[in-house]
Amino acid sequence: MPALKSWFSIPRGSHFSLANIPFGIISTASSKTPRVAVAIGDHALDLEAFTANNGFSALSTIQPHQAVFSESTLNAFAALGRPVHSVVRKYIQSVFDRDTPYPEVLKANSDLQKKAIFPLAEVQMHIPFQIGDYTDFFAGLHHAFHAGRQFRGPINALQPNYKHLPVGYHGRASSVVVSGTPIRRPNGQYKTDPAAEDSAPVYAPCRKLDFELELGAFVCKPNDMGKPVPILEAEENIFGVVMMNDWSARDVQQWEYVPLGPFNAKNFGTTISAWVVLSDALAPFKLKGIENDVDVLPYLREKDSKSVFDIRLNVDLKTSSGNSSTIAESNGKYLLWSFPQMLAHHTSTGCPMQVGDLMGSGTISGTEPTQFGSLLEQSENGKTPVQLPSGEIRKFLEDGDEITFTGVCGTDDEALVGFGQCVGRIEPAPQF
Amino acid sequence: MPALKSWFSIPRGSHFSLANIPFGIISTASSKTPRVAVAIGDHALDLEAFTANNGFSALSTIQPHQAVFSESTLNAFAALGRPVHSVVRKYIQSVFDRDTPYPEVLKANSDLQKKAIFPLAEVQMHIPFQIGDYTDFFAGLHHAFHAGRQFRGPINALQPNYKHLPVGYHGRASSVVVSGTPIRRPNGQYKTDPAAEDSAPVYAPCRKLDFELELGAFVCKPNDMGKPVPILEAEENIFGVVMMNDWSARDVQQWEYVPLGPFNAKNFGTTISAWVVLSDALAPFKLKGIENDVDVLPYLREKDSKSVFDIRLNVDLKTSSGNSSTIAESNGKYLLWSFPQMLAHHTSTGCPMQVGDLMGSGTISGTEPTQFGSLLEQSENGKTPVQLPSGEIRKFLEDGDEITFTGVCGTDDEALVGFGQCVGRIEPAPQF
Repeated sequence: MPALKSWFSIPRGSHFSLANIPFGIISTASSKTPRVAVAIGDHALDLEAFTANNGFSALSTIQPHQAVFSESTLNAFAALGRPVHSVVRKYIQSVFDRDTPYPEVLKANSDLQKKAIFPLAEVQMHIPFQIGDYTDFFAGLHHAFHAGRQFRGPINALQPNYKHLPVGYHGRASSVVVSGTPIRRPNGQYKTDPAAEDSAPVYAPCRKLDFELELGAFVCKPNDMGKPVPILEAEENIFGVVMMNDWSARDVQQWEYVPLGPFNAKNFGTTISAWVVLSDALAPFKLKGIENDVDVLPYLREKDSKSVFDIRLNVDLKTSSGNSSTIAESNGKYLLWSFPQMLAHHTSTGCPMQVGDLMGSGTISGTEPTQFGSLLEQSENGKTPVQLPSGEIRKFLEDGDEITFTGVCGTDDEALVGFGQCVGRIEPAPQF
Repeated sequence: MPALKSWFSIPRGSHFSLANIPFGIISTASSKTPRVAVAIGDHALDLEAFTANNGFSALSTIQPHQAVFSESTLNAFAALGRPVHSVVRKYIQSVFDRDTPYPEVLKANSDLQKKAIFPLAEVQMHIPFQIGDYTDFFAGLHHAFHAGRQFRGPINALQPNYKHLPVGYHGRASSVVVSGTPIRRPNGQYKTDPAAEDSAPVYAPCRKLDFELELGAFVCKPNDMGKPVPILEAEENIFGVVMMNDWSARDVQQWEYVPLGPFNAKNFGTTISAWVVLSDALAPFKLKGIENDVDVLPYLREKDSKSVFDIRLNVDLKTSSGNSSTIAESNGKYLLWSFPQMLAHHTSTGCPMQVGDLMGSGTISGTEPTQFGSLLEQSENGKTPVQLPSGEIRKFLEDGDEITFTGVCGTDDEALVGFGQCVGRIEPAPQF
């Protein structure tokens, strides 16, 4: 399919081509109230202002619901359901189309352009959803193997359940923050020498602070308690996808996680990218995930084996001395389980999901060291320092380090579907 | 201290004596809108109606905040802070006092009595808080030992970290429901013969459905991300306590929980009692918990060693054939860690807590089989059937079984501080 062309200037290579139209929450210098917007090229289209000035006059479907664009989160818009998201996205694409059938709406309306279009550099991004519950899965098979090997050795690296169900755990919704929010190194309880069985733990600044390269999916359709979401319907319940950094304190994790799983090691901060890419925008980039050599139970069987996304994922590290380098290149395809499978499993016992619930994929690593989505894997839990091009080395993150994830689908520079950035910089641990 | 006497009829033995004044959310036949109330004897005092009719005229502290009593959850009232809860509780006690200094408010105001006082049998109770995040701890030492023995044998029953930190995991907030809500037996993935290493799992109705006798505490004061709550301040952040049944699917749990902890085994339903007993009302019943023979780190050290509560906890089982019996008698004192310690640990890495967040204690068992707070313990994971007085037996819960928890503090029948009931009845698993 040739790229859609716009009358509006969209730089080549932009993550936010006309093929994308991701949704987010913005505020601006002129109006501090957070509201809904879409990203187009280097700009945001303020949908509250767009609505107030009859931008949706040609789209009767959305008119009874226009108040959703004045909300401070995407929850109300998401709750309208995927058919509505689809219609709104297509309408916005048509408004920006070079040959738009609605020139009067925006193309020939310089007044509305002034009121509703803002350079991205001038908008403040906010957390896109009010997140009721956040669940983190462990669907990156290569990561699960590498991480399991660090904690339990190669023989027990993958547990017997791993290929039968998407392993997951409940995470902490209150510490999910939007890209750009500083992350404070946590103090935590851990053993300085985990091998010394009788040694006492300390409470001290984390010494094994790590990132985790993940994708996250937001739920747009609730299910009642006691009523599982059938696998063949699960895709309809997924609004869209963000990049996610599930910051981890590996020393805390190793000491605390048996028997009830990761807790304080994960609850001090999780960063998500600000723009949510709709499921519709990702659909052309579906492909087959990692082959599962286990015959999964029917409640996890998808109709279409193409159920994960070909998203090129990069991890960049900028050290406190200002040197930047790419330290990992992975891909959304390195997942054993898809989001619909995660959702079907999550609700298999009848767990109720709500609009705005977030599911993380788990760390997405490839098989090669240059594709490892965490420092736990890259440095073998601190045993092998990672050499940076600047000459610096890292076992884990240091104060002042900034981690940036980028993710993008497609090869046509005029039709990329990207996620922008997911950024966090490490601040020193609090004194106590 | 002699019992407070009231002009209002409060039955002897009521959980809701004048010493209590627990808070909850009610609706009535005449007004379906949920709102704040307190329980007194066999009645509820509707605080919205009380407020609207100048009930708080003698309490200037609360007047700027009276709108909180029209809310459909306790979040806004809780956010006012413990000094305000304390003043409101004392004022309501004084209004009901036999020698009330404010007879015109209610004692001599039969009109307001008619408008604001409802028999408990006629009110509908609602979930008391909008719960942002729910965390379940594992602070019942005897339970931790008994459960660990079932899953890992006696040698590894307690993990090395157990006495150094309050082990906990993030739970599922969306499936916390108020007492009386039916609980549907989940279908789930498990192995019918966990010992058969190569056997395939099934997706089928849970065969090891269990209850867990817990207490839960609600947070009333938020902390910013990155800022731990100091142990000596933690008590101020706890609004009050409820009874909690953390229903568990043991077969699902055993198959799924390594390495990331319990997930689907716990997310299909958690029942809490409807009335929240304020921290102030529980203060006279503080006592020393189980002695910790480990020297805990300073961030977990309490000033006062009396930090758990002497609450007599009962578990009653009513089978589908209508026979009722008490199957466990435990006590809130069988905890190794207190709620302030749980909160200090939870926030030790900087995890932000919000008003309305719920912390569960973990199952509270004594040392004797008659004190075991779960069937996992009582039946030794299904190996030893529990004999009921009716002649029936139970390894785990059957469809139609109803579990009722009761909890009460004190011995003076005119001054009990109780929790009412926490009830749930098992419905058959959904067809699929």
